[in-house]
Amino acid sequence: MKNYFATILLGLTICSAGAQAQQRQSPNIILFLVDDMGWMDNSVPFSGAKLTLNQRYRTPNMERLAAQGVLFSNAYATPVCTPSRVSLMTGMNAAHHGVTNWTSPVKNKNTDAPDSLFSPAPWNVNGLSPRQGDSATVYAATYPQLLKAAGYYTIHVGKGHWGPMGMPGANPLNLGFEVNISGHAAGHPQSYLSEEHYGNLPGKNSVQSVPDLEEYYDSGDFLTEALTKEAIKAMATPIARRQPFYLNLAHYAVHDPITADPRFYQQYKDAGLNAAEAKYASMIEGMDKSLGDIMDYLERQHVAGNTIIIFMSDNGGLSLNPPRGGAAHSQNLPLKAGKGSVYEGGIREPMLVKWPAVTKPGAVCSQPLIIEDFFPTILEMAGVKKYNTPQEVDGKSFVPLLRNPAQDQPERALVWHYPDKWIPKGGPGINYHSAIRKGRWKLVYNMRTGAKELYDLATDIGEVNNLAAKQPAKVDELAKLLSDQLRRWKAPMPVITATGEPVRMPDELVQVYKMK
Amino acid sequence: MKNYFATILLGLTICSAGAQAQQRQSPNIILFLVDDMGWMDNSVPFSGAKLTLNQRYRTPNMERLAAQGVLFSNAYATPVCTPSRVSLMTGMNAAHHGVTNWTSPVKNKNTDAPDSLFSPAPWNVNGLSPRQGDSATVYAATYPQLLKAAGYYTIHVGKGHWGPMGMPGANPLNLGFEVNISGHAAGHPQSYLSEEHYGNLPGKNSVQSVPDLEEYYDSGDFLTEALTKEAIKAMATPIARRQPFYLNLAHYAVHDPITADPRFYQQYKDAGLNAAEAKYASMIEGMDKSLGDIMDYLERQHVAGNTIIIFMSDNGGLSLNPPRGGAAHSQNLPLKAGKGSVYEGGIREPMLVKWPAVTKPGAVCSQPLIIEDFFPTILEMAGVKKYNTPQEVDGKSFVPLLRNPAQDQPERALVWHYPDKWIPKGGPGINYHSAIRKGRWKLVYNMRTGAKELYDLATDIGEVNNLAAKQPAKVDELAKLLSDQLRRWKAPMPVITATGEPVRMPDELVQVYKMK
Repeated sequence: MKNYFATILLGLTICSAGAQAQQRQSPNIILFLVDDMGWMDNSVPFSGAKLTLNQRYRTPNMERLAAQGVLFSNAYATPVCTPSRVSLMTGMNAAHHGVTNWTSPVKNKNTDAPDSLFSPAPWNVNGLSPRQGDSATVYAATYPQLLKAAGYYTIHVGKGHWGPMGMPGANPLNLGFEVNISGHAAGHPQSYLSEEHYGNLPGKNSVQSVPDLEEYYDSGDFLTEALTKEAIKAMATPIARRQPFYLNLAHYAVHDPITADPRFYQQYKDAGLNAAEAKYASMIEGMDKSLGDIMDYLERQHVAGNTIIIFMSDNGGLSLNPPRGGAAHSQNLPLKAGKGSVYEGGIREPMLVKWPAVTKPGAVCSQPLIIEDFFPTILEMAGVKKYNTPQEVDGKSFVPLLRNPAQDQPERALVWHYPDKWIPKGGPGINYHSAIRKGRWKLVYNMRTGAKELYDLATDIGEVNNLAAKQPAKVDELAKLLSDQLRRWKAPMPVITATGEPVRMPDELVQVYKMK
Repeated sequence: MKNYFATILLGLTICSAGAQAQQRQSPNIILFLVDDMGWMDNSVPFSGAKLTLNQRYRTPNMERLAAQGVLFSNAYATPVCTPSRVSLMTGMNAAHHGVTNWTSPVKNKNTDAPDSLFSPAPWNVNGLSPRQGDSATVYAATYPQLLKAAGYYTIHVGKGHWGPMGMPGANPLNLGFEVNISGHAAGHPQSYLSEEHYGNLPGKNSVQSVPDLEEYYDSGDFLTEALTKEAIKAMATPIARRQPFYLNLAHYAVHDPITADPRFYQQYKDAGLNAAEAKYASMIEGMDKSLGDIMDYLERQHVAGNTIIIFMSDNGGLSLNPPRGGAAHSQNLPLKAGKGSVYEGGIREPMLVKWPAVTKPGAVCSQPLIIEDFFPTILEMAGVKKYNTPQEVDGKSFVPLLRNPAQDQPERALVWHYPDKWIPKGGPGINYHSAIRKGRWKLVYNMRTGAKELYDLATDIGEVNNLAAKQPAKVDELAKLLSDQLRRWKAPMPVITATGEPVRMPDELVQVYKMK
């Protein structure tokens, strides 16, 4: 842990040299986390070129951030939200923490869709817990707890979704945040509209009603805007005290219910988008406006030079129609499929990092990284070097990549594991899939059929050419790597209802399940 | 403002001498504010002896606090909640800040009951605002803002009720608090029960649903207990950082809906109380348990010696039946009437203050003081000496009384002004009354009838002997004092509907209104 201190006096500063040292050593850190935003849902050329979808969306502030920092073109999360958010908080892979599916706001409730063949995997349906002994939870320390203990002022604004009602994970204050605005058990807002009181109209509430925003009722402020104002209000306190802060600005946008942000909707409609896609694009631009407002605020407060901004999404863009418009699973092209899938459309994320005086403006990094890497990275950014956690941290700091984005790192295997049934209908790479990527090669394992697919991402980002039959040795190598890792982590596996046995690992002899 | 700083490092302390100085100079301050609790609703002999009601209620932790600090036997608030809470925050008398009645959770809504003779006074129905220009608000700086600027960690837990939804006063974060748990526009909880999710069951919400407590749903924790746990959680952060804190622990208890606290209900039922009164007593004891838990926590954390605890209520005990049991207006005996009234039962409060190394254990102070006095007092306790506020502060610091409770102070006039109609039915001293106390004398002015009553509180705490006819000179003197003060403050007055004229001041020729 760094030795440092902050003056909290406004006015005369005592020990100001020390305070400056502290300021120099402990940057503010903002994680700007968007919900359900796909890799292509913006005007930044994450693929290296402005493709069709990049021309549809307008995100000038993401462009501005990209111009000031590093663009990560191979950044990953998991296929759905809670697993990513728990990986973020704990530094553990989803197969390791076992919160493999989204958590219900209701305790002990398994959100897996019913299946004719499989019974649900024994995953941690009650999410993340900061204390030992809670049933069906992963017990772990979070990096906000460690940041807080190191003197950071820790703020959460927006979506929490770390655990259900009745469990400690429902409350961000239990996870290392000292300020919480609007974070709770729910994974999406009942409403984005102030006229609907964000879901709190009398007699019309649900578990998704957004708390803490009464001030904005009937103000006309879209939820994204209200949360931005609250985030700015919360940052003012540590800035005034010259205390380093961590802000987890976790927007509810752009999760369903897809709703027109009236500030931006019409221009997309006029551009010829159908209503659903124009609404979606308006939510994207409202989110981008929030990013710009935050950046402007930091500049006005003269702290932009000491504030790291990390931009990330928690899973791929939704590709179901409805609620999206257009052909199903086309919304993240050139990536295949979307949210819920282990194909690139479901897991590859738009990620940007600006670290003043560290990152080079306009840099690009194509090294793969994954959401659990944020845990050690953010702690390293904060100068928190030694810490103990009850969990073994799987993530690896990407600070070296921030310093040198072109650095050639040894090839590392990244793992995705989704032993759950997200939607009854299924879809490409959706429900009961695992995957592993090492270097250019990606193996996709279908737990239902036992099928293994192999893709060369260096030449086939769209995962259209399955090379499994041509390269059986590579398949076996990756299947072994993936299986060993899943076994080591004691990853939950679906249970074959007829036999009571767990589904086999991809390197084991695979039975062919009868499809009903 | 004090010059001081706090180290925020856990571990090696830099500038530790300075930090200790800061700790010595800046005590933690807890305001333990109960809602609707009457002067007699406890086992502490505020009257000087254990009377009947003191024998009914069990509040061992209030007794414990009284034994450690100063008991104030003549402490006052206003007849209803929002006026007291705004006086507390602003240091202004209710007649001055103009928020003379309780604010609706709904913006621009006048909560005065309809009247056949009067139209509502032009009071500030939108409550307190930290910014200029909001309609029907009082614009003022709050002492938590000043404490925060001076380096205090400011926490609000529980009932807010400073302004309606859609206005900044709905959000404690706008009033100087950096942490807010469960404070919002509402003045009471929809439910005290975790089984009812404190009013958040799907489809059953109201503007009184208590936010931020999902963690406790179905836990069995009564609302008072859940808030206590949250307060303790929030204090842990500044204690770990050795940062001075201000905690506004504003319980929803013991406001209606009167609900059995299952931990304590049965014993009161067994003691022969009717169901309503047994429930009420159980809420009182649950509140007292909270006080004890807070005191225990401070001791365990070794900060009790540097933490001031102020115990207070916001208005007199409710004396309506229903919801209370027993004869109406008997619940605060020997005091007359209850909540809503300018008689002693509506405004005299159980107040205790422990300031380690300042107050003498078991001391009693009979000097009158009033809720707006808390503003300068708390700032003086914190060592915040120079500050500017947009409002003129009416309150007077009672720090000298804490140092010397027996100090004979020059007689000072205290004013109550309630130009509103609280309940359709009315009651003793309820609706359209003002009052003034100077020394032993109290004048009560009925705006509806023009009648003036005079009581000698030194011999008649129950206000049963109206001495107005016997002492006309004293009546005139106090009427003049009261009127001058109300005129100076531009106090809102009810409007005589028939003429459009405001009701006259008590020293003006008083017309006799026809009663319809």
